[in-house]
Amino acid sequence: MPKRQSAGAGGSTLLGIEERRASARSGSTALDRWLTRRILAEAGHPPVAIELWDGACTEPPSSSGAAAAAAAAPDLVARMEIRDRRTLYGLLVNSDVAFGDAISADRIRVHGDLVTFLETIYRSTDEAISLDSRKHRFKAWLNRPRRNTRAGSRSNIHHHYDLGNDFYRLWLDEEMVYTCAYYPHENTTLEEAQQSKMDHVCRKLELRPGQRVVEAGCGWGSLAIHMARRYGAQVRAFNISREQIRFARERAAALGLGERVEFVEDDYRTVEGEYDAFVSVGMLEHVGVDNYRTLGEVAARSLKPDGRGLIHSIGRNAPAPNNAWIERRIFPGSYPPSLAEMSTIFEPQEFSILDVENLRLHYARTCRAWLGRFEAAAERVAAMYDADFVRAWRLYLAGSVAAFTTGSLQLFQVVFAPGRSNSVPMTREHMYPRQ
Amino acid sequence: MPKRQSAGAGGSTLLGIEERRASARSGSTALDRWLTRRILAEAGHPPVAIELWDGACTEPPSSSGAAAAAAAAPDLVARMEIRDRRTLYGLLVNSDVAFGDAISADRIRVHGDLVTFLETIYRSTDEAISLDSRKHRFKAWLNRPRRNTRAGSRSNIHHHYDLGNDFYRLWLDEEMVYTCAYYPHENTTLEEAQQSKMDHVCRKLELRPGQRVVEAGCGWGSLAIHMARRYGAQVRAFNISREQIRFARERAAALGLGERVEFVEDDYRTVEGEYDAFVSVGMLEHVGVDNYRTLGEVAARSLKPDGRGLIHSIGRNAPAPNNAWIERRIFPGSYPPSLAEMSTIFEPQEFSILDVENLRLHYARTCRAWLGRFEAAAERVAAMYDADFVRAWRLYLAGSVAAFTTGSLQLFQVVFAPGRSNSVPMTREHMYPRQ
Repeated sequence: MPKRQSAGAGGSTLLGIEERRASARSGSTALDRWLTRRILAEAGHPPVAIELWDGACTEPPSSSGAAAAAAAAPDLVARMEIRDRRTLYGLLVNSDVAFGDAISADRIRVHGDLVTFLETIYRSTDEAISLDSRKHRFKAWLNRPRRNTRAGSRSNIHHHYDLGNDFYRLWLDEEMVYTCAYYPHENTTLEEAQQSKMDHVCRKLELRPGQRVVEAGCGWGSLAIHMARRYGAQVRAFNISREQIRFARERAAALGLGERVEFVEDDYRTVEGEYDAFVSVGMLEHVGVDNYRTLGEVAARSLKPDGRGLIHSIGRNAPAPNNAWIERRIFPGSYPPSLAEMSTIFEPQEFSILDVENLRLHYARTCRAWLGRFEAAAERVAAMYDADFVRAWRLYLAGSVAAFTTGSLQLFQVVFAPGRSNSVPMTREHMYPRQ
Repeated sequence: MPKRQSAGAGGSTLLGIEERRASARSGSTALDRWLTRRILAEAGHPPVAIELWDGACTEPPSSSGAAAAAAAAPDLVARMEIRDRRTLYGLLVNSDVAFGDAISADRIRVHGDLVTFLETIYRSTDEAISLDSRKHRFKAWLNRPRRNTRAGSRSNIHHHYDLGNDFYRLWLDEEMVYTCAYYPHENTTLEEAQQSKMDHVCRKLELRPGQRVVEAGCGWGSLAIHMARRYGAQVRAFNISREQIRFARERAAALGLGERVEFVEDDYRTVEGEYDAFVSVGMLEHVGVDNYRTLGEVAARSLKPDGRGLIHSIGRNAPAPNNAWIERRIFPGSYPPSLAEMSTIFEPQEFSILDVENLRLHYARTCRAWLGRFEAAAERVAAMYDADFVRAWRLYLAGSVAAFTTGSLQLFQVVFAPGRSNSVPMTREHMYPRQ
């Protein structure tokens, strides 16, 4: 397998080893140290130290002697080492992208637990930003996601999901479920939690044998196969990732489910036919707000009058700019919407929202499980790609844990039905069957 | 108790008995019958017959011979008798108000089941209106609710909730719960269902002994008392209806709960202090969209960092004008919002929405139970007020059943928490305890 163009490669080229050595030799100036304090201030004074290339160390004011009288200094949770001057300056321009690229290129190192460091930064930055709405709007404009036209979607999806099934196999569960799991108990494993998630979705849809289901964005086919195999449904599942579709078809064939699950390598906008259920788990993040109305139209024309829909997506408590590094290097075109933004899917079609569940803490736990497996396989990943790739993906997975534990990201499951349908359950008891 | 000014009194004055007789004597003209056909067409050709004062009867085209070839005519579900010409003309101007007033003044009579008649009209009118968005916007403007300033709210709430506790006692459950009940089983009674609803709310809040709760809009105090009595909570409950507060205080005192429940006769905007839970059941309908942001601010300043909120309200699948007759005669200032409209409460405060449940069919069943008890007490209500009042309230209750069964109205329970709180449950199992 060819080595992938590293996420932070541009930075490494701009600042070669020789130059970095020169920068390090030059020592930090008073300006460098002033800029370091500005960076900590912009981030809301997190309990984090920044160390420059010559060992000069800056701590948040409340933990240095002078201002400590005001309040007890929180313990420092980590030390961030900035290894050259150009990296320091980069953080001042577009901090999210520069930080991610510098981590990937090993020009920034975090000493201490990466998840805890990121949680701390997220919490303090959120607070600082919510005090300054003009900055918020500028950041939103700067970080606006690229558009998801049909061609754009293909290219965006290819970037992430076609990295190679062998790579994802190293750290996902055996059925390759790459969405938030559902942990009914404290001691549930990742494998069990992904099965529980699929059952939770099928129970919300009250799926019965023989029902026809269309799935928009099916990943490696785990849910489509689960619905056919465990619930006797007839499933048509769409995806534009060639690698995923190939895997899904092979798995369905091996399980003898070829007659009951059809995998279509096409865009959700081409869905036709009438179905008892419309389901989409983890695709909405890639759809783009501009296309929500179209997605709603597809769901409306697909559902029988007594049908049921479920959309599962990463979201936000309020509209906010995406993390620019994630959007550029990891998930091009992605955007996690607020529930009000999601309503553009439902309200123009007069869909009735039956149920919304927020599974945020389940996604924190899922990402933590993925991160653990990824770390265990880090050497094999480095051999497949390179060390920059490993650092980029470690940051992405650790950042995801932090985003879900701090409440920067949410996970919404929305169940809906055509507005006039009375084929809706009275209660949600059926989602919680007695063991 | 003084006789209340009848809802439809204006109409009766405009068209006295003598004039009505003259109108009836004159017989219907070709124009009258053409207008009748227009009314049926505007309403989307429901399977309903209209009979004029001289017995001339118009049925929807598909059930009269000529057009019957196209499709099998649906059976007529009811016959609407228009008893004079001025009432017919009134229906052409502001149909909802004219219809309600005419029912109340006995100038329109419905022969057949009133709920079924209204369900039929709602279904066919919704279809006709959704085909014509300009009409929709005009109707929204015409039917815009009056504003809920603090003074406006007092007057609006007084109109409905201060009709007299003796009146409501005739047809509500014994604890005077005047909001959607929760029916866990087919054979649950209204009394049991109201208890179940209050337990459902307390479970959603995971209420524990000693916790402090603030309630915005407490009706006759049933939930506040339930939370104190059954869950050991310390409750402060707000309401601007004097009659309701008086009843609530008396009941709390009689139960020896004076130390644990405080009833405050004041506007929700005056809430102060810090609480573990913020709860509002059936008040939002009276708040008005303009004040949602303020309500969110009140909830945000009231909740401790690990607190939990619940708002329970009638709503819509998509924004729509209120029924103008309901807004004028029954609930001044009322407006049922869509979930996107409700998001103005939550998103500016960065509240995290944890759970949304739609209890629409429970409210249909609740209203049907109220309607049954109201009918059984109709003679006593007529003695308290007058026959016009009975007809107006019958229409309001039957119309509510129809609105919930047809999906014209929804009932949303939204659970939320401060965005950074991780004191949120992993699953919703606790809402469905094993019996």
